[in-house]
Amino acid sequence: MHSHSSATHCGCIDVHTHVVPHEFPRYIGNRAGVPWPSMRDAQPCHRHVVIAGNVYRTVSHQAWDADVRIADMDARDIGHQVLSPMPELLSYWLDASDAAVLSRYLNETLAAMVARAPHRFSALGAAPLQDIDRAIAELQYAMETLGLAGIEVGSNVAGVPIGDPRFWPFFEAAQACNAAIFVHPLRPAGMERLVGPAALEQIVAFPGEIGLAAASLITGGLLARFPRLRIALSHGGGSIQALVPRMQFAWEKQQALRDAIEVAPAKAARGLYYDDLLYSPGAIRGLLDLVGDERVMIGTDYPFAIMDADPAARVASLGLPREVEERLRRGNAQAWLGRTLR
Amino acid sequence: MHSHSSATHCGCIDVHTHVVPHEFPRYIGNRAGVPWPSMRDAQPCHRHVVIAGNVYRTVSHQAWDADVRIADMDARDIGHQVLSPMPELLSYWLDASDAAVLSRYLNETLAAMVARAPHRFSALGAAPLQDIDRAIAELQYAMETLGLAGIEVGSNVAGVPIGDPRFWPFFEAAQACNAAIFVHPLRPAGMERLVGPAALEQIVAFPGEIGLAAASLITGGLLARFPRLRIALSHGGGSIQALVPRMQFAWEKQQALRDAIEVAPAKAARGLYYDDLLYSPGAIRGLLDLVGDERVMIGTDYPFAIMDADPAARVASLGLPREVEERLRRGNAQAWLGRTLR
Repeated sequence: MHSHSSATHCGCIDVHTHVVPHEFPRYIGNRAGVPWPSMRDAQPCHRHVVIAGNVYRTVSHQAWDADVRIADMDARDIGHQVLSPMPELLSYWLDASDAAVLSRYLNETLAAMVARAPHRFSALGAAPLQDIDRAIAELQYAMETLGLAGIEVGSNVAGVPIGDPRFWPFFEAAQACNAAIFVHPLRPAGMERLVGPAALEQIVAFPGEIGLAAASLITGGLLARFPRLRIALSHGGGSIQALVPRMQFAWEKQQALRDAIEVAPAKAARGLYYDDLLYSPGAIRGLLDLVGDERVMIGTDYPFAIMDADPAARVASLGLPREVEERLRRGNAQAWLGRTLR
Repeated sequence: MHSHSSATHCGCIDVHTHVVPHEFPRYIGNRAGVPWPSMRDAQPCHRHVVIAGNVYRTVSHQAWDADVRIADMDARDIGHQVLSPMPELLSYWLDASDAAVLSRYLNETLAAMVARAPHRFSALGAAPLQDIDRAIAELQYAMETLGLAGIEVGSNVAGVPIGDPRFWPFFEAAQACNAAIFVHPLRPAGMERLVGPAALEQIVAFPGEIGLAAASLITGGLLARFPRLRIALSHGGGSIQALVPRMQFAWEKQQALRDAIEVAPAKAARGLYYDDLLYSPGAIRGLLDLVGDERVMIGTDYPFAIMDADPAARVASLGLPREVEERLRRGNAQAWLGRTLR
């Protein structure tokens, strides 16, 4: 077995990595036809995620095996991974009582992975946001009992944008218990605009979806209301580099927008955190230019198909001053998580 | 009356300016409840565009008056405006025979404005793309009889993305008659993700919509099929700076994507033209970085609410070498239009 006290623990912090459990409990609710996930063996070291009778995705043991992950991390100068569920598992479309059971299972699984190597892993859990009270209860259990670092939330909850005021009580509770929030695209807008293979959902629709989620946080007033809340957007905030200057320009020009939106969009954008999953030095520099060098963190999408495999090299390629590079490698992630990591 | 032979005719070329006619003919078709546009007086120098009984937008005389436009152009170092209809007027949701009548009226109106000052204006017409044969007929009339420079098309046609192969015969005809194509957001995807005032349709949803349109042109294979076609995306291509590096990364990694998409996404993106309507020097530099300095042109959205009022100053603020700045000011627009402008 691989040693957990490897010398690489001062490597990068990767805030965007996903987990799929090795298996799921059987559905024990009393509804019929629930799209409850299960796992089935595939090729060696792989399992199929089966949802509603279909193979949703085939994942490797990297998705659940802490030791495999640590070996990969050591090979790539990654000291610490922030674990979060594969977003489809957030299951906002299930009945809330079923989703609460599934969220609890995901959160216990994540906590067990962290317990195997607490210096190498932190975790962001799931909360059944289709029911705010249950979501708050699960948030509090995840933070206080399981010691997770925060919650992964979808860019929308069964179609409702994450910036909608109906979610404010959840975010108020997240601020109160010091939870980091990670917003990830899920069932994206714009699917009807794609021309080509099914993989374009993740490749083409995700960046716009996360940009719309960021915009909804900015225009919905969440940050003005909960100024100590620490929210990160995945995929570098996607389209926000096209959105925020336009939003700021319009906001400065139109009284009606200033009446409706309290904080200037450019300032609000600098109040969020972002991973750097933009696949190009130019795009990451554009993000730094927009939001400043204290808001961008490494995120790779490990272990999925288009993960950015060598994030330390990616950050090094930006040619940043050493102390700024160190912020991207470690400092900003610790600020977002509200934790000092060894 | 203002002189049309002003000394400023070597100023910038603004490829993104809109026209609303001073009035519309009455609906003479035989359908009931058709959302045919009409104009109604508003405050001095303004008229309401009324569609389906509602004021869709109130516009000033800048929208239809060539002399007013020329005075504005002279004040801002704009030598030439490329005129195109206010996109909502493209009317892809009308019955095709009604839309053909409306397109013809728009195109005659645009041609008359060009005739008033042919050195100061070119025009992009409308074509009823809900019926490909009628669209091709109107394209040919606009190019051959009216002498327009090309056609403005929506990012989608009643929900069908502009990159869908069903539009290939139209684009084949456009290539054959040397028409420049200008793609503009219209009835954007992502409306269900907005939180805030109605103005967010244009401000927040347009950049993602035009990015999805660009992606559909890239993944749908249009440019591989019609390599001499000259297509420009408005709003700087919107979200493409987030999309193209991700598409390129995935394309290099996944054989299935290379099988489905012939031309590498990064190369395809460099085969399109873009206006610079991104409201920030950093975002425009990012676009230049992505597509090269022979593909970006000035576009302002004149005379609408969030037009970029001083495009010469915008381009100057980029600090580009003089010959590159001149490409953005004039050269690239002439290449896209396929015309030498005085």
